[in-house]
Amino acid sequence: MSMTSTNDDVVALAQRLLACPSVTPATGAVFAELEAMLAPLGFTVDRFIVGEAPDGPVENLLAWRTTGAGPHFAFAGHLDVVPPGAGWSSDPFAPDIRGDLLYGRGAVDMKGAIAAFVAALADLPDDLPGTISLIITGDEEGPAIFGTLALMERMATRGLRPDLCLVGEPTSSQRLGDVMKIGRRGSVNMWISVAGSQGHVAYPHLADNPIPRLVRILTAVEAEILDEGTEWFQPSNIEITDIEVGNAAHNVIPGRATARISIRFNDQHSGASLIDRITGLAAQEGGTVDARISGESFLTAPGVLSDIVGAAIRDVTGVDAELSTTGGTSDARFLSRLCPVVEFGLNNATMHKLDEAVALQDLRDLQSIYAHIVERALRLS
Amino acid sequence: MSMTSTNDDVVALAQRLLACPSVTPATGAVFAELEAMLAPLGFTVDRFIVGEAPDGPVENLLAWRTTGAGPHFAFAGHLDVVPPGAGWSSDPFAPDIRGDLLYGRGAVDMKGAIAAFVAALADLPDDLPGTISLIITGDEEGPAIFGTLALMERMATRGLRPDLCLVGEPTSSQRLGDVMKIGRRGSVNMWISVAGSQGHVAYPHLADNPIPRLVRILTAVEAEILDEGTEWFQPSNIEITDIEVGNAAHNVIPGRATARISIRFNDQHSGASLIDRITGLAAQEGGTVDARISGESFLTAPGVLSDIVGAAIRDVTGVDAELSTTGGTSDARFLSRLCPVVEFGLNNATMHKLDEAVALQDLRDLQSIYAHIVERALRLS
Repeated sequence: MSMTSTNDDVVALAQRLLACPSVTPATGAVFAELEAMLAPLGFTVDRFIVGEAPDGPVENLLAWRTTGAGPHFAFAGHLDVVPPGAGWSSDPFAPDIRGDLLYGRGAVDMKGAIAAFVAALADLPDDLPGTISLIITGDEEGPAIFGTLALMERMATRGLRPDLCLVGEPTSSQRLGDVMKIGRRGSVNMWISVAGSQGHVAYPHLADNPIPRLVRILTAVEAEILDEGTEWFQPSNIEITDIEVGNAAHNVIPGRATARISIRFNDQHSGASLIDRITGLAAQEGGTVDARISGESFLTAPGVLSDIVGAAIRDVTGVDAELSTTGGTSDARFLSRLCPVVEFGLNNATMHKLDEAVALQDLRDLQSIYAHIVERALRLS
Repeated sequence: MSMTSTNDDVVALAQRLLACPSVTPATGAVFAELEAMLAPLGFTVDRFIVGEAPDGPVENLLAWRTTGAGPHFAFAGHLDVVPPGAGWSSDPFAPDIRGDLLYGRGAVDMKGAIAAFVAALADLPDDLPGTISLIITGDEEGPAIFGTLALMERMATRGLRPDLCLVGEPTSSQRLGDVMKIGRRGSVNMWISVAGSQGHVAYPHLADNPIPRLVRILTAVEAEILDEGTEWFQPSNIEITDIEVGNAAHNVIPGRATARISIRFNDQHSGASLIDRITGLAAQEGGTVDARISGESFLTAPGVLSDIVGAAIRDVTGVDAELSTTGGTSDARFLSRLCPVVEFGLNNATMHKLDEAVALQDLRDLQSIYAHIVERALRLS
């Protein structure tokens, strides 16, 4: 690995991507920049737009390069960013280097990582057989209905199926390399509704107040212990996130009460099993449940992929990465249907915040880690 | 008692009052009509306007007539009416006799009763010593801050203090005379708030969800048994009337949760004692309580006044009136500070509804009952 020859490149590549405003859903210019980076490296680039309102249209980019029979390794990520918000020290879409940091919306989540994908690929040895692909969506921060899922369909129609996949989400916590994610909890929201009969508070026998029944349901929900955690997951957790009655009249017994709960669950459960469970609790008090599963849990059991990523991190940074399953959901929940997936990327301290910034040295180290990972992955037999 | 000589009068008087639109707060014309009825009967009439926005100004009418040393008997009531709403069969402020019924907003609540006050007073024997007063507000259906309370202050400054008082609210249920009210429950609203710390549902250890604590408080509130009722009161009752969190974000643990409860309580409690009790329950989970007492309970223990009213009802209608304390609050809660108070009036079946109507015969019988009551009250020694 020659570090010096590419040091400038990863920073320059990141600046080019950061200079394109791409609040979710990302479109146009930022994809053109990435295409312009990949085409000279011999990648076939397939940009396409799918979906309709309200969750689309969404722009995506699939790129691949096959240099002989061998494993298929995929990088995955997104070019969209969350809105910058007001109060930045510099223009969030005019990347600015101050001291050792590069500032811009998306610096760590995750245009910096995509720049590191490209820089790593530009610097690979020529004798690596196999396929390398990039699965890049413009909608990860939004509804994500027409993003990575559409890219997976596109790959299937082209007969492309990765053997290993790395998602470049910013997983590092205190320093680059300290955390990789080998799984994520699933997420499901449920709305528990209890219908009663409206009436006057002075005549409660003529009404049926739904609130005491909802309170009993919520008491039962709070008493649920879903599990004690597993070797790789913390215990599944239920939060009651809202209660809504909407009764402004002081002397009226309301006719309806609704609570919303959010469950983050590990691989001991599925969205459907949890909906059944809460529906059963609600039914004991005449309540009903509507639900929306945001994502199922997944786990890439520690093995070949996490070993490769861990070794690459250790070689470059000297850090032993923790294997984590904490945090929210990511597109890895979709990609895990195809092959083992690990998430690893930059420090997430400034992710989604004002003055999002990445250390220049972290960009260079990440490029080097990614290069190590690809090389090891393609040399697997 | 000569019934025939006044039969037409009570209906005509009621029509005159009903013809004056007087949605709460009542002003002007309807008071002028009543004044014009009372002045010829030898009453001194004191009309006055008090209070400022938002609960005022309010117009009130105090009238009194003293014909020698003797007891002071007071009629009390209100000339304001609730809004008519849309869908009446005839103009709610153009009183209309169809069949045996007189239609108009306020027919039973309670311009009909005020017409019966006047008709009864017009027909009294001349030899009754004592004082008769009318305590008539234009704001009973509204905030009631500057209504009967202001009339009581006005009476005090004039040295007027009744010995017995009858409020003409429509207490009859199935037929005229079946129910009088000798007390009312008190009413207090409380807002129970729990503060927590907002956070992301994926990181509950970094947040403090106030909802489970509010649910525990509400469970304790629901388990409270305030009393088993008394000889004259049904058990005090707590209703949870609203819960408000206001958290639209599915992935956010809210920072605050509030519930509203309404307690209707008998004479075993005071508003203050109940506020203390609920505050104690809330404090166990770190919750706080704001409260507003709408009215304290009162009881006119069965005795002279209820005996007089009951006998008058029996004489005219043959019905034995039930002594009740059910229902909402009324201005009797204020007047009970001065003297024994009983509420008795027309059938409440159409009160506050479309096509509010009173039976012509009920108006005539009520006039007769009220005349009996005044006569018996003033003959007390």
